Amino acid sequence: MKKYIVSFCIGILFVVITKGQSLSSPNGQLKLNFKIEGEGTPYYSLNYKDKNVLKDSKLGFVVKPADSYASDFKIDAFDHSSFNEKWEPVWGPNKEVANHYNEMLVHLVQNKTGWKLNIRFRLFDDGLGFRYEFPVQSELRHFTIKDEVTSFNFGKDYKAFWIPADYDTNEFPVTTSKLSEISKLIDEARKEPLAAKAPSATLAVQTPLMLKSQDGIYINIHEAALVNFPAMTLDVDEKNFILSSNLTPDRNGDKGFIQTGSVSPWRTLIISDDAREILSSNLIINLNEPSKIEDTSWIKPAKYIGVWWEYFTGGGSTWAYSDNQDIRIGETDYNTLKPNGRHGANTKHVKEYIDFAAENGFDAVLVEGWNEGWEDNQAYRKEHIYSFIKAYPDFDVEELHAYAKSKKIKIIMHHETTSSAVDYERQLQKSFQFMKDNGYDAVKTGYVGPIIPRSEYHDSQWMVNHYKYVVETAAQYHIMVNSHEAVRPTGLHRTFPNWIAQESARGTEFESFNGNRQDHTTILPFTRLIGGPMDYTPGIFEGDLSVYGNNKAKLSTTLTKQLALYITMYSPLQMAADLIENYKKYPDAFQFIKDVAVDWDTSYILEAEPGDYLTIARKAKNKKEWFVGSITDENSREASVNLSFLPKGEKFEAIIYKDGKNASWNHNPKSYEISKQQVTSGNTLKIKVAPGGGFAISIKFLK
Amino acid sequence: MKKYIVSFCIGILFVVITKGQSLSSPNGQLKLNFKIEGEGTPYYSLNYKDKNVLKDSKLGFVVKPADSYASDFKIDAFDHSSFNEKWEPVWGPNKEVANHYNEMLVHLVQNKTGWKLNIRFRLFDDGLGFRYEFPVQSELRHFTIKDEVTSFNFGKDYKAFWIPADYDTNEFPVTTSKLSEISKLIDEARKEPLAAKAPSATLAVQTPLMLKSQDGIYINIHEAALVNFPAMTLDVDEKNFILSSNLTPDRNGDKGFIQTGSVSPWRTLIISDDAREILSSNLIINLNEPSKIEDTSWIKPAKYIGVWWEYFTGGGSTWAYSDNQDIRIGETDYNTLKPNGRHGANTKHVKEYIDFAAENGFDAVLVEGWNEGWEDNQAYRKEHIYSFIKAYPDFDVEELHAYAKSKKIKIIMHHETTSSAVDYERQLQKSFQFMKDNGYDAVKTGYVGPIIPRSEYHDSQWMVNHYKYVVETAAQYHIMVNSHEAVRPTGLHRTFPNWIAQESARGTEFESFNGNRQDHTTILPFTRLIGGPMDYTPGIFEGDLSVYGNNKAKLSTTLTKQLALYITMYSPLQMAADLIENYKKYPDAFQFIKDVAVDWDTSYILEAEPGDYLTIARKAKNKKEWFVGSITDENSREASVNLSFLPKGEKFEAIIYKDGKNASWNHNPKSYEISKQQVTSGNTLKIKVAPGGGFAISIKFLK
Repeated sequence: MKKYIVSFCIGILFVVITKGQSLSSPNGQLKLNFKIEGEGTPYYSLNYKDKNVLKDSKLGFVVKPADSYASDFKIDAFDHSSFNEKWEPVWGPNKEVANHYNEMLVHLVQNKTGWKLNIRFRLFDDGLGFRYEFPVQSELRHFTIKDEVTSFNFGKDYKAFWIPADYDTNEFPVTTSKLSEISKLIDEARKEPLAAKAPSATLAVQTPLMLKSQDGIYINIHEAALVNFPAMTLDVDEKNFILSSNLTPDRNGDKGFIQTGSVSPWRTLIISDDAREILSSNLIINLNEPSKIEDTSWIKPAKYIGVWWEYFTGGGSTWAYSDNQDIRIGETDYNTLKPNGRHGANTKHVKEYIDFAAENGFDAVLVEGWNEGWEDNQAYRKEHIYSFIKAYPDFDVEELHAYAKSKKIKIIMHHETTSSAVDYERQLQKSFQFMKDNGYDAVKTGYVGPIIPRSEYHDSQWMVNHYKYVVETAAQYHIMVNSHEAVRPTGLHRTFPNWIAQESARGTEFESFNGNRQDHTTILPFTRLIGGPMDYTPGIFEGDLSVYGNNKAKLSTTLTKQLALYITMYSPLQMAADLIENYKKYPDAFQFIKDVAVDWDTSYILEAEPGDYLTIARKAKNKKEWFVGSITDENSREASVNLSFLPKGEKFEAIIYKDGKNASWNHNPKSYEISKQQVTSGNTLKIKVAPGGGFAISIKFLK
Repeated sequence: MKKYIVSFCIGILFVVITKGQSLSSPNGQLKLNFKIEGEGTPYYSLNYKDKNVLKDSKLGFVVKPADSYASDFKIDAFDHSSFNEKWEPVWGPNKEVANHYNEMLVHLVQNKTGWKLNIRFRLFDDGLGFRYEFPVQSELRHFTIKDEVTSFNFGKDYKAFWIPADYDTNEFPVTTSKLSEISKLIDEARKEPLAAKAPSATLAVQTPLMLKSQDGIYINIHEAALVNFPAMTLDVDEKNFILSSNLTPDRNGDKGFIQTGSVSPWRTLIISDDAREILSSNLIINLNEPSKIEDTSWIKPAKYIGVWWEYFTGGGSTWAYSDNQDIRIGETDYNTLKPNGRHGANTKHVKEYIDFAAENGFDAVLVEGWNEGWEDNQAYRKEHIYSFIKAYPDFDVEELHAYAKSKKIKIIMHHETTSSAVDYERQLQKSFQFMKDNGYDAVKTGYVGPIIPRSEYHDSQWMVNHYKYVVETAAQYHIMVNSHEAVRPTGLHRTFPNWIAQESARGTEFESFNGNRQDHTTILPFTRLIGGPMDYTPGIFEGDLSVYGNNKAKLSTTLTKQLALYITMYSPLQMAADLIENYKKYPDAFQFIKDVAVDWDTSYILEAEPGDYLTIARKAKNKKEWFVGSITDENSREASVNLSFLPKGEKFEAIIYKDGKNASWNHNPKSYEISKQQVTSGNTLKIKVAPGGGFAISIKFLK
């Protein structure tokens, strides 16, 4: 009875204090409500076009020392403000980005402890971002997060495009199911044999998570500006359809060490009843800080080929120089080892790639397996695995530097760390200096296997800080970073535009063992790519890997779908991943890869349905050239390409690369047709897409 | 029955194979026996002067993957060899070291797995060292140690001088008891409130462990050349009096990640029936590798004072520049902070130290609290705690560099890491470059608090590698390292002579809260110092800390015992720790500190009994000067100083600094007498030592 009265009093109290607790988006379509209820618990809820999309959802943390940081709160003040600006990214799908939102900053004070907690809500027309702010305060200087309480209370059984929560990897195929079906599907979804794995003990999924309600509202949940915090996964309450934050712990179970005077990442919801608006949203990058790099003139989008796919085809070439597994970096003299004769990154072979790159207008050549350390099959068990400044005896750094320079080609450095992160940091400055000394301006980093320090996971706070440290250090050397197997991106490429791309999902390499489904690339733009560009490495023309030997894998796409991916999978760094010999076999199709741009003035999402299809057009930066990509899942369809994005009253030539009549991913994947036609902004092209197929169009100004 | 037969067969087998399984020391006093018995388990035992000192004691490991690496062995071969050389250390208690041993290398092969394991035994006249060697082999490339099986089976209830096993600290008072009494005393012994602590879950003690048998045999157990391995503590079987290795795990419980083609540290036993021979043993440094630093001309023993003790006296001066605890390195502008007015390391005050150092023949001044970061009382909870290149606003690096240089004084750099080891590594190269740019050639490092990476303890393999990494990197910059709170030393100063000293035990700072017992410094040379020199920081003249304010602590020694410590606590780096004002009050006693050498031609252990007393004489390097130090525990005694170490037929002047007639540590500690007398090698001086007292003698050639 006493408890009841107390609650009742608090209730009355807040009727008075909580005025101004709601917030609308600039166009009024989104409405946020914030309140304190029950035991002083903060809640938020959200309406979209007058429909409730989020019921009352909890906010706060459970922390060490012993106290809850999620209840016993009172509201101290609200600050309201608005913001509207346009800004220009260094690179991106659009040369200008509008950042328009209304903001509410809620100041909370915990009654018993006096601890302060602020929550900042930003409501855009296409979604919500909110973050926790931990003000400097004398009663609370440091705390350790035991749990984040933040929840997303949908209360309905949404359709979800999900991968299982895992603290170590994002390299799962995406499963499409209702929230209520996740528990029966998750064991199967977790069957990913390759990556280091630390699955959540609870029923949980990774972000970016794409949801769709029965009445056609699309909601994407993710986070923005993940800095000095562990990455968030989402626990699934499959009875009540509530998702709630499950932060990546360290191996001791701690979920973040926080000093007050800091902020959490933004928790984000992108919301629309038009799937295309999910893809065109700039909410995530808008919630990131502007570039911290002042002179960005050295940061350049690039198209590249590489000594890479040949390691996956089963054709026999290897990263390792020798078969002696008992090597020790700094002790083993590689000149005394017997070469295995299958080493891919040898000077002669790399020159062939440089020649081909130069002849076909590429910017760069990635070379993997150039450096000492690849021999040991159990390398992940030791800490000092690779040298990042010592090349194999058959890889002549200086000669290749001079050769590439003479051909105006950059070699892309490769730093596979095998997740020995501290050892990488130890070598970092010397490695970057080595790169500068030898003409490299971009590095692909890799984090295969379990993390050292052994207290950490790929997505724990410590590693989140590590990736940022690498990128910031790289910036000091004017080096661009393309990180593989790192934590999923959260828009930090706005702040560090030298973080040119990431992997952090199942890329093309999984095609080499039948790992990608036909709908995979129709989902990724709604999930993984919401956080930032992906180095997906498309462009595989020879999809039948049995031609190389014993590998029975078959590509999940048609040949022209591979072309479409250069448009639908946005990245300022695009690889043409296949072997040179295959591009030489199909020079007409290869022409699209040669032509396609990697940086853009404007992007147009023409058609989109997650898991089904996508049609996107983009205008090349500072050029009167447009490129269209369209893909489908396992089902054939007819795409509609409305060319109204073209300038009116002008004429253009379109070259269309489409599936052949009887093409499909599993039969005749290499059947394609190339045609030219004149087009104007008044045209709408209807193009048939094969099962697992796609098409690409290049459009040039005629007069 | 079947089992019995199998064992029996193995028994017979080894009668044949195990010929040559014993080993004698060069003088024949020590005899080692090695055998395989039972389920193929390797054992060793040891006799000293025909008395058994070690019964059959197990050898081997339990490892992951699943197999035991401690049984099912057969002997493949024995290699016998001898070695005898003399070598010159860069610095040390003796300018020449004899390294004379007989060696037996046992090659074992595990029957089931085919795994190879070698054990190398070296028998010196004063003890045994043995290590495991893991040869390169195709069947075993990497393993993780679950446990080391190595045991020391004394079978008798020895007297032990021990501290509790702890994976994070060595800063305990030493307890003296029988092995059988450890369990009832260990809880009390663990009461050390200051240091981060990770006590062993088992009944275990730290090494170096000093033991004494009832029949007067002294045995010291430790390890040598601790490299890429966790530090060893010793589990105590108090019923059977067997000690066995308890390696420091990481927080996941793993005890070392090993790649074959490597070796373990040496497990060492120094054995004698004369306690003095324990102290004069060179077994530990002989088992370390020769110097890896070729040019050692920049490595110089030194005597120093410092801005240090004033932080412990309770006199009010502080490391921190301001009282604002909400600082963030790289973000906080210290020029905007309000100074607290009590900051010790300010330019003016440091100049006073430089002046005093120059006037009194010191080499260097240590300055703690010079750099940004000391404000936060919970600093250990964050990772980026200090800048090691950014001084406080009131510490003028350039001005002090110039001032010190003009006075021919070096400033010793201080890097307190608060155990944030990776963050220190991130800053390491720039910090060392900053030191060189500003005239520093030595650094005191500190590791207070819990380790980050949070998977690690102070003594786990990862941290063992960290300390070595710091020392090796320092050597590249010609910087000497004095590490505090690091893993206990194991003679690596032979290999890295720039590792000039360590703390790794309870030093003088504990006097500031009554933390050291009267017998403490009579035990440390038999325990902690067995591994290497200790920066004990003696020289406290004002032992009554109440003169400074509220601190009630009283020094555990007389004033002249403080002088004796410069001789009895060997270190090439010796501090005069007290405040300048106190040295000015006692200029006659201070004269000994001014005179005493820090590097030596020869050392003479004249009297020694662990826990009771010590008298040591040393000849200054390249000088006809000798210094004697003698200390006692809480009991008064008469020391006997036999001067036969002096050259015969020559005359010398001895200045004797001894306790006053009624002196004792707790009454009249500052009562002392100084006298001069002429002496020759024929003299034996009988000198009374007060309770908790000591005396020092300086001897100069007269003619």
